[in-house]
Amino acid sequence: MKIDVYFSPVQVDEMQLREKNVIVIDVLRASSTIVAALHNGAREVIPVSSIESAVKVSGNLFGDVVLRGGERNGKMIDGFNLGNSPSEYTEEAVKGKSIILCTTNGSVAMVRARHAKNMAVACFNNISAVIDFILETGEDFSIVCAGKVSLFSLEDAVCAGMIVKLLSDRDSLVVELNDAAVAAHVLYKTYSKNLLKMIKGCDHGRYLAGIGFENDLKLCVEIDSIPVVPMLAGNVIKLKAPSGLKKEEAKPSAAAEAVAD
Amino acid sequence: MKIDVYFSPVQVDEMQLREKNVIVIDVLRASSTIVAALHNGAREVIPVSSIESAVKVSGNLFGDVVLRGGERNGKMIDGFNLGNSPSEYTEEAVKGKSIILCTTNGSVAMVRARHAKNMAVACFNNISAVIDFILETGEDFSIVCAGKVSLFSLEDAVCAGMIVKLLSDRDSLVVELNDAAVAAHVLYKTYSKNLLKMIKGCDHGRYLAGIGFENDLKLCVEIDSIPVVPMLAGNVIKLKAPSGLKKEEAKPSAAAEAVAD
Repeated sequence: MKIDVYFSPVQVDEMQLREKNVIVIDVLRASSTIVAALHNGAREVIPVSSIESAVKVSGNLFGDVVLRGGERNGKMIDGFNLGNSPSEYTEEAVKGKSIILCTTNGSVAMVRARHAKNMAVACFNNISAVIDFILETGEDFSIVCAGKVSLFSLEDAVCAGMIVKLLSDRDSLVVELNDAAVAAHVLYKTYSKNLLKMIKGCDHGRYLAGIGFENDLKLCVEIDSIPVVPMLAGNVIKLKAPSGLKKEEAKPSAAAEAVAD
Repeated sequence: MKIDVYFSPVQVDEMQLREKNVIVIDVLRASSTIVAALHNGAREVIPVSSIESAVKVSGNLFGDVVLRGGERNGKMIDGFNLGNSPSEYTEEAVKGKSIILCTTNGSVAMVRARHAKNMAVACFNNISAVIDFILETGEDFSIVCAGKVSLFSLEDAVCAGMIVKLLSDRDSLVVELNDAAVAAHVLYKTYSKNLLKMIKGCDHGRYLAGIGFENDLKLCVEIDSIPVVPMLAGNVIKLKAPSGLKKEEAKPSAAAEAVAD
């Protein structure tokens, strides 16, 4: 098994991810938000790469069964229902809803991986469930860190490194790592003893704490708090289907059919 | 003093580097080659981002005072005089010559930094000289790792981390680091005890050893073996001028005047 890590989605283009098995990590906060939303009963999350796409996709359905979520500069976008804090995506807010998610980094990375063979969303909250999924698949994987506007993000790299570490511990076949996977592993070993300190000290953690989201930092480093695997199924992200149900079999929602970007 | 590290030139565009102080690192091998070439008496090195540019810039002067150097897939380009191994850039080969250098990663990163306020070339061979230059400047710096075709390269990151470490040791004012600078520092601390093992094990080190350049790996991890600072002066890279001589005062060569890309 070969594991390639990319520290930023600008390092890998859509064609390179085509038909690959892909994990997208955006610890702060799109991955953590998607995990929370689906766990709390959202029908699906539809990642889009621009506000214009979010408005277009939600269209006439907006406000009924479709909500818009996301952020610019960490804050909720005008005219949207939800921001990008996992704590907002409660059962009361999202049960049965389709969420159009537009974030600066995570949703952009997920859109880039839309032609992947399999695309799963990972963060610390669901890391062991993701490990089970990778081992069950048993094939090579590309791990794409969302980063921050094309830049390296420490929290995503450490999470990628934790995946490398856990896979290596559980499967002796995980032998081939690219340079970034090796580096991520080193970073995880350095920070594993105090992930909260790491996330409070990293660039985006400091920024989010500064605008009032310090509590999100604690939520986002909770290991295995929400053991689900969000996966791309057609144009939308849903909880991983039981074995045997192929993604093509899922009946698309009206919002999913409106995805055009 | 703020130190920002970028693990790949695709993470930072030309405008972001404009009027900044920039260090470009390409341990394997453009930085190491430039350091060797200028130390051995080359008049200047002119980095270009494509083979077409190399041919255009060298023009009628080719073969007389102008040599073409560089690589594709690590090997010398057809019609060029030199490859990208520091060992080729001997005094006999390069003294008094202008070298048009076209490499896959390093020269591309250097071209991207062409509008920097100051741009210096760094590798393990000249690292302490670069530290002196940074401290003498006393301003913020952006360190751009050339990486490998947009990807993260461990050897460049470790070299960037060594710069962060040495600066931190020598100047208590080095306090602000971006996430990548923090990560680079961690990587350097992990690999500092055995740089040769690191470079033999990294992606590009293994590739170069496989095509016959194992000796270059040893050359490229020699700390402070060539204590010079190559710097951008106009369109060309020359040895750092003595204090007081501004880069504008240097009279351009015919090859330098032909740089058009």
